[in-house]
Amino acid sequence: MNKKFFKVITRAKALSLFTELPVMEQERIETRDSAGRILGRTIVAPCDVPHFERSTMDGFAVFADDTFEATESKTVNLSFVGDVTMGQETTLTLKTGQAISIPTGGMVPVGANAVVMIEYTEMDGKRVFIKRRVAPGENIIRRGSDIARKDVLLKAGMKIRPQDIGTLSACGIIAVDVYKKPSVAIISTGDELVPPEQEPFPGVIRGINAYTLHSMTERYGGIPVDFGITKDVFGKLKGFIRQALANSDIVVISGGSSVGTKDITLDCITALSGSHILANGLALKPGKPTILAMVNNKPVIGLPGHPVSCMVIFYLIVKPLIEKMVLRDKRIGEQNKIQARITENVSSVSGREEYIRVSLIEKNEGVWAQPIPGGSHVISSLGKSDGIARIDLESEGIEQGTLVDVFIM
Amino acid sequence: MNKKFFKVITRAKALSLFTELPVMEQERIETRDSAGRILGRTIVAPCDVPHFERSTMDGFAVFADDTFEATESKTVNLSFVGDVTMGQETTLTLKTGQAISIPTGGMVPVGANAVVMIEYTEMDGKRVFIKRRVAPGENIIRRGSDIARKDVLLKAGMKIRPQDIGTLSACGIIAVDVYKKPSVAIISTGDELVPPEQEPFPGVIRGINAYTLHSMTERYGGIPVDFGITKDVFGKLKGFIRQALANSDIVVISGGSSVGTKDITLDCITALSGSHILANGLALKPGKPTILAMVNNKPVIGLPGHPVSCMVIFYLIVKPLIEKMVLRDKRIGEQNKIQARITENVSSVSGREEYIRVSLIEKNEGVWAQPIPGGSHVISSLGKSDGIARIDLESEGIEQGTLVDVFIM
Repeated sequence: MNKKFFKVITRAKALSLFTELPVMEQERIETRDSAGRILGRTIVAPCDVPHFERSTMDGFAVFADDTFEATESKTVNLSFVGDVTMGQETTLTLKTGQAISIPTGGMVPVGANAVVMIEYTEMDGKRVFIKRRVAPGENIIRRGSDIARKDVLLKAGMKIRPQDIGTLSACGIIAVDVYKKPSVAIISTGDELVPPEQEPFPGVIRGINAYTLHSMTERYGGIPVDFGITKDVFGKLKGFIRQALANSDIVVISGGSSVGTKDITLDCITALSGSHILANGLALKPGKPTILAMVNNKPVIGLPGHPVSCMVIFYLIVKPLIEKMVLRDKRIGEQNKIQARITENVSSVSGREEYIRVSLIEKNEGVWAQPIPGGSHVISSLGKSDGIARIDLESEGIEQGTLVDVFIM
Repeated sequence: MNKKFFKVITRAKALSLFTELPVMEQERIETRDSAGRILGRTIVAPCDVPHFERSTMDGFAVFADDTFEATESKTVNLSFVGDVTMGQETTLTLKTGQAISIPTGGMVPVGANAVVMIEYTEMDGKRVFIKRRVAPGENIIRRGSDIARKDVLLKAGMKIRPQDIGTLSACGIIAVDVYKKPSVAIISTGDELVPPEQEPFPGVIRGINAYTLHSMTERYGGIPVDFGITKDVFGKLKGFIRQALANSDIVVISGGSSVGTKDITLDCITALSGSHILANGLALKPGKPTILAMVNNKPVIGLPGHPVSCMVIFYLIVKPLIEKMVLRDKRIGEQNKIQARITENVSSVSGREEYIRVSLIEKNEGVWAQPIPGGSHVISSLGKSDGIARIDLESEGIEQGTLVDVFIM
């Protein structure tokens, strides 16, 4: 039995070692279909919105000074000189002493500088009786008051939301450059694995990591490329990885990342030309048996085979890599992190970051996080969880009632 | 001018009036592709996971009692009688005084009830020297200890996550019944509107609601059916709505929902046979001009035309309807709600629920919500926001520093 050892490093250190991570190319897509994509370059407004003065009310466009003395009991009487039609450019010009009927959203005619709400007027066909004064600019949306030409509309690296599609569309930006999604090749290795659709005989189990990783890849902004299950045979696994590298931007391999005799992932990666092992082992629980490497400018990650640690490491390592490859920037609310109080004392080992599965409970005093028991092989423990709570590297545990960050998974 | 009036009701009341909302049919899809879909029926485990006893360590399967006196200095010596091969059913049976080599994940042979880690053993080919005692069950995963037959795996109404796909797949459940997504027909009405790709002349503007609503529909679990922009002409709009009803599960119309002369949405819905107006006006800001109706068992919603109120009402009314139609149940972390302290005093009118656009700022003491100024027509105000903060119905405002619920939009 050849002895192998981990040489663990922290998660933060591990992520910092990916200094040569490539940035994805961009592609142009229709703005209306761009929700959820990552914007490739900062966009500034090419025009003013609105591009003409609009009324915010149904009423009469006037010259504000004319209404100065108007009251309910002593109206100001203006000459009615026409209507602004909704959706049409008006050619009317307003002179002092005149009023022009205007609908909500209608174009304010030249010469007018305010709109009196219809509720504060009466008319007899020729004259308009104004019952209340208006200030200059009242009930008018000025040109460029929503979006001014050259305003920054959306910054590069932001995830595009429905409201952003609205802002861009309002300026006539109907196509945007977004980063292509990184493709993630997913390989499972393990002599004991059969696909979920097979009835496993005693001694073998259903390999579920190919499915969970597929789904997580889509959820976190990648395109899964499924390579299925291979046996723990050096030539086979190496061949899978080589083929995966030729067909994807990131390669993940679940299983074979520990230091047992059957664990060959490290050997396979090392044997590839152009490979550079960044880490073998993380100061992290669950997920110690993790391998990080770059092979010819592409990240290759050996994930633990245990289903829980496999998903947790995907979340903690692969998701950030996907995000780095599209220079992702995040709004605060997008971090999917909430604070909760832990329901019981949890011990931990200092020098190792720990993530415990928790279910969230809403009580009057706020949200509480209840630890879910079970080792990293207990698939159902993650299904029962709402997320994972972090216990920091230097902590020796957390006391009941302490606020913890819970990352919703 | 025929006078029309709102008769406002609260949002909670409005939602409660949809008593005859249909529930979507279900469809069977592959489990691996089911992430994000809503489970149609509660699933119980058809089998135990694991379905045989497995070792959690590389080592030797033993009868625990045999190791009772083992210490580092005085080992217990057992007869080596063979190996368990990974991924194969073992036919070996262990008798007292014997040890069988076993890999992590290997099948524990009949007769063995514990595994000694390889680190605490030595062997000479015939004998295994045990240096540490093990308790019965130690380093063994019992049959059904992860998932027991008849355990509830996932409840109806839950959104399926990657880890749920893992749990289901582990039991060989490779297809699931999920609710079909409600289709949402999207109509925009307005004489002043042109599609975003057109250069608007003075007097007309780009209609963006068709795009934002399309994107929100997808984001919140519906299938958009785009009907584009129509003029504020009774026969035309009514025709659009009738056609939309024939081709979708929910109909939304943006624009024409207020009480001006050009606002014809209410008249159009009322004129349809089988229509039942539930509400005309909400005690809500932004979004007062909202029409809620059922037409032949399908919800028809008249949304405000102003882009901000349009999106906010979609979020507050249409999203819950989509969720009700698939009997959606939510985990706490899925509510996309965070608590933040408001950065300034905000006044409000009692008797009206108010939602203010806010951007979130992370300070040392926690997250703060900064109100974004601008009326409900200011498109860019929602683009600058991270979410909307609620001011309750009976509140007359909130003081600086007060904790508010912010719904991430």
